[in-house]
Amino acid sequence: MKLGRINHIGLITESMEKSLAFYRDVMGAEVIHPPFEMGGPDGAAICFIETGNSQLELIQPLTPASPFHQFIAQFPTGKQHHICYEVPDIHEAKGYFESKGCRILFGPMIGAHGTMIFFVHPDDMDGVLTEFLEPHGGPNDPNKGHAA
Amino acid sequence: MKLGRINHIGLITESMEKSLAFYRDVMGAEVIHPPFEMGGPDGAAICFIETGNSQLELIQPLTPASPFHQFIAQFPTGKQHHICYEVPDIHEAKGYFESKGCRILFGPMIGAHGTMIFFVHPDDMDGVLTEFLEPHGGPNDPNKGHAA
Repeated sequence: MKLGRINHIGLITESMEKSLAFYRDVMGAEVIHPPFEMGGPDGAAICFIETGNSQLELIQPLTPASPFHQFIAQFPTGKQHHICYEVPDIHEAKGYFESKGCRILFGPMIGAHGTMIFFVHPDDMDGVLTEFLEPHGGPNDPNKGHAA
Repeated sequence: MKLGRINHIGLITESMEKSLAFYRDVMGAEVIHPPFEMGGPDGAAICFIETGNSQLELIQPLTPASPFHQFIAQFPTGKQHHICYEVPDIHEAKGYFESKGCRILFGPMIGAHGTMIFFVHPDDMDGVLTEFLEPHGGPNDPNKGHAA
């Protein structure tokens, strides 16, 4: 396993509207992708912002059941949430971290980019909630269609 | 002001030795710069790790007076600390954020990279402690020597 590029930095927000205004009007973000909602019990609004060499991921919890809510309660003004590194093969990476004794929180599953991701427990990641992502075009890309 | 590249992500650690072992042996970091100490009342050990498109900055407070200690007390297992964006001119950037009503915490001053930096209060940065850095070769590079 080789340390991958930082794909994005996850940031919790209480208000997507306020945060987008901040990143657009104060920080000068020029490439802001359209926000979208991820459904289910972890329901959240998501928006990716380009920084040139990486992305910010704004996350606004939409349901009281969302695990993000606990985070919001602890850090009401919003706060960094996770770091995401790229890996070449999501299943190999999962096996690798399990072999190191790291607890997989959930996944592999399709994440907000539409590619395969999994999360690892912060207590096994030197204190940082950590996501791993196989970029588009990888061996497990769910958008590859019928290609064997 | 245009959103800059993410220069590094600051991560607090209680033990540089344990964190370096984690990033080397578990995460597979191949380019780890030599750790060094920054003196003064904010004394800390610092180590930069390359991720390919950005850097991680490990920060271990060395003195009880260090403002990092409050952070450690709150998050004993270590935690994300700040995001650093690049700006083309440190003084222009400071003036820009002041004009937006953002509180400068300290700086401009020489930071851990040996270039000019300043920090902005997280309450004015959508909840994230944020650093701005003028990369080497910029108009205020303290290593430029006698060049006018």
